Amino acid sequence: MFKAIITITFKKSILDPQGNAVHKALKSLGYEDVEDVRMGKHVEILLRGDEPQEAETKIKEMCSNLLVNPVIEEYQVELVEVEV
Amino acid sequence: MFKAIITITFKKSILDPQGNAVHKALKSLGYEDVEDVRMGKHVEILLRGDEPQEAETKIKEMCSNLLVNPVIEEYQVELVEVEV
Repeated sequence: MFKAIITITFKKSILDPQGNAVHKALKSLGYEDVEDVRMGKHVEILLRGDEPQEAETKIKEMCSNLLVNPVIEEYQVELVEVEV
Repeated sequence: MFKAIITITFKKSILDPQGNAVHKALKSLGYEDVEDVRMGKHVEILLRGDEPQEAETKIKEMCSNLLVNPVIEEYQVELVEVEV
């Protein structure tokens, strides 16, 4: 069994309205030292199987087929083997 | 300057409807090996300052004051020093 931890963020060039909203909220709470806030998605997928190479291929397929919009988003995958 | 990477997830005992929706969508695309999907939030905060201890305290404060709902969510913070 594998656990894939996928972090999906907007590309640097893409505006992040949710991040901007949080930035403003933090400023209004008095946190003046905040320079920037970017938000993203965190996805954890538990996948049956015992071939790391195969698992990684499948996860990347899932990302491009469903989870990630490649026009505006980029992603990173971390794959760890876990006990069943 | 510090970059804080905050990962906010539902507590294990809390149902995750978004994760369930993604799980079902993956199954309908033919990914039968998926055992579970959990979704969470990923927040990156750029913070001015040069005291790691102080930065961490501030980030944790921001989490409990705004970013995290401690009743249903838990979070992890990773703090890295970055070049200005």
